[in-house]
Amino acid sequence: MTPHRLQADRELSERLFAGLMDFSRDDPGVTRAPYGDGEQRAHDLMREAGLDLGLQPEIDAAGNLFLTMTGRDPSLPAWMVGSHVDTVPHGGNFDGAAGVIGGLAAVSGLRRAGIVPRRPIVVAVFRAEESTWFPASYIGSRAAFGLLPADALDLPRSDSGLSLRHHMIELGLRPDAVAAGAAHLSPARIHGFVELHIEQGPVLDTQAIPVGLVTGIAGSFRYRKAVCHGTYGHSGAVARPYRHDAVFAMADLIVALDALWAEIEAEGQRATITVGEFFTDPTMHAFAKVPGEVRFCLDVRSENVAILDRIENHFERLIATIEAKRGVRFTLGERTGSTPAVMSPALHDALAAHAARLGIAHQSLASGAGHDTAVFANQGVPSMMVFIRNQNGSHNPDEQMRMEDFHDATTLLAHLLADDT
Amino acid sequence: MTPHRLQADRELSERLFAGLMDFSRDDPGVTRAPYGDGEQRAHDLMREAGLDLGLQPEIDAAGNLFLTMTGRDPSLPAWMVGSHVDTVPHGGNFDGAAGVIGGLAAVSGLRRAGIVPRRPIVVAVFRAEESTWFPASYIGSRAAFGLLPADALDLPRSDSGLSLRHHMIELGLRPDAVAAGAAHLSPARIHGFVELHIEQGPVLDTQAIPVGLVTGIAGSFRYRKAVCHGTYGHSGAVARPYRHDAVFAMADLIVALDALWAEIEAEGQRATITVGEFFTDPTMHAFAKVPGEVRFCLDVRSENVAILDRIENHFERLIATIEAKRGVRFTLGERTGSTPAVMSPALHDALAAHAARLGIAHQSLASGAGHDTAVFANQGVPSMMVFIRNQNGSHNPDEQMRMEDFHDATTLLAHLLADDT
Repeated sequence: MTPHRLQADRELSERLFAGLMDFSRDDPGVTRAPYGDGEQRAHDLMREAGLDLGLQPEIDAAGNLFLTMTGRDPSLPAWMVGSHVDTVPHGGNFDGAAGVIGGLAAVSGLRRAGIVPRRPIVVAVFRAEESTWFPASYIGSRAAFGLLPADALDLPRSDSGLSLRHHMIELGLRPDAVAAGAAHLSPARIHGFVELHIEQGPVLDTQAIPVGLVTGIAGSFRYRKAVCHGTYGHSGAVARPYRHDAVFAMADLIVALDALWAEIEAEGQRATITVGEFFTDPTMHAFAKVPGEVRFCLDVRSENVAILDRIENHFERLIATIEAKRGVRFTLGERTGSTPAVMSPALHDALAAHAARLGIAHQSLASGAGHDTAVFANQGVPSMMVFIRNQNGSHNPDEQMRMEDFHDATTLLAHLLADDT
Repeated sequence: MTPHRLQADRELSERLFAGLMDFSRDDPGVTRAPYGDGEQRAHDLMREAGLDLGLQPEIDAAGNLFLTMTGRDPSLPAWMVGSHVDTVPHGGNFDGAAGVIGGLAAVSGLRRAGIVPRRPIVVAVFRAEESTWFPASYIGSRAAFGLLPADALDLPRSDSGLSLRHHMIELGLRPDAVAAGAAHLSPARIHGFVELHIEQGPVLDTQAIPVGLVTGIAGSFRYRKAVCHGTYGHSGAVARPYRHDAVFAMADLIVALDALWAEIEAEGQRATITVGEFFTDPTMHAFAKVPGEVRFCLDVRSENVAILDRIENHFERLIATIEAKRGVRFTLGERTGSTPAVMSPALHDALAAHAARLGIAHQSLASGAGHDTAVFANQGVPSMMVFIRNQNGSHNPDEQMRMEDFHDATTLLAHLLADDT
């Protein structure tokens, strides 16, 4: 039986969150650029914490860090827990880091309870999960499986303009091995993967429930560098029928996508549609000019492939209709996307049973955001995410999480890992 | 009778346009910032050209330049012709400058024909007409009448951030006299004001007519620094009912304004509605964030005060509706505006008669854009604008004008000025 006194190490969690905050504050919020100074210092901090707990460190070609607690039977496939420690610009301190710190706090709890697990337990610290920086999803975790396409190494980081390869070399890593598909991880050697993460929406907080058990992760399609081209003109002198107004064309597009989204929600389906960046050309626009260009990005997500397809088909028809109606032209640039991922029902139910036993209120929900866990799930690894209630969303400076909720979630994780004795 | 051989000075026009282009090219297009180096060099060039024609130069406290051809009876109220020589950023070479160069070419034509007019003829070169730079309309021409409010001198120029007062002092001008309401011009001393200008829309070009006679100038209401405040959030994790998306809110606003505009046009009324600048916050926005802020400007124009009021009332209701629907908040910032101006029917008909006699095809039309002429008309000076066909709109690098069309218009102007012998 699992000892009821098993608790995660709350002091360690608080110390590590404070340690991260120390060097990554970038008002408002925190910034830890992937393959930049912030992420590297976060990796260093996690590595030191792992060494203090007696874990074995390994770093793969892409700079992912793996900290292993030896099990009683090293031949068994390992439990793996973890997440990433990079952040969006001016993001919060918890998104990503909670999954790594939670793994360390759970392992520390096992040690303090004198539990030596049957299987190895690996705390993974992945690189470059926040796709704001390099325009690709799950860079670190894909590279860990040898799945990152070689051309991803040419992607520029949005702040520096320098390539992923360049930044890897700067840190002494091995982009050539990444390009050649060198794999540090093998799906067959992983018993199960669990990622703790703050919830990035308001569902748990609204319902006053501290812990969420995730059923699936949304897939997506995305355009990061789309442009609507119109024609500049004098704002007072070009009548309505003669205009090719890029801002009005974009308003048509967004209102029509919003109408489709409302229709999908009315059918009980879930999706998100976001135009996170939208800007007229600051070197050409003016108060007294019809706007001749808008640059924008589009991010569409759903757990349901059919819904993604339906939105994408509608989007393509809208583009054509608006081009004809407004005399504008869209150039969408590169399309990226990811496949929805289903979580392991067995892991979900095991966690639910532990939570019930421990008296931790929980509910099942889906993840609209993408996570490294999707890579594991789509590789056939039994995978699961645990969400922690969070008061102000994520990817913003105000993200919040109560340490008592985090402690509940990490203790729940420790009990799952201890169960396999 | 007017001598039929009276022609404007086409060589002078071509030389002056080329001279302007020489120092103001700023690819794409030309830039001459008001009270900046570009506008000052343009004033210097016009002053030299005036001196070559034997005109008397005067510069008022605000730096407006007046070049006077003495008439046979200096006690008579003068004809005044002119415009401005500043441009929008990356604008064209003709907007504004055509009105000044046209005046000089007409005066040169009179001289070459040996005509000494009865009244003085003043070629006026006004400062700072393009309100892209300082957020106020008709700065130079209002100052010439002592009508510029003192607080306008505190307005910052959009590129430098420095005040109008600062830029005036830099050029050795007298902002204190401007603030005190010193007037260089008096409406009673002006017989009539005529401004030549390229048409800024496609009407004349579409109808293959070189010259337009303007019946009225649109008034406006404007917000230059409006903001829609929403809430940032994770693009994948915040469901539709929980979003406060500033871009979606703006799309609602623009589509609703466009619907009203279509309705107004269907009634046979004229207006323009422009959102020339629209941008999410580049320091905070991201591909994977619900946008929490949009900065935008709004420019609404019509010759009809009732239409302006109708659009403004509707705009205010829309703001309130969208704030409630989307959970966003608008802060509109300072509202500026101008009153529509009616042109002189007598001057219109006199020019139409000369054009008919000279065989210059013309048609009457309204000006959606504002011009210095509006200041004269609203002061009770009989005022008139002559538009010249232009192939690519204005306030953009591609504005065009055929020199033969310009020559027709300046010759027409010369005949009007010679008529009053």
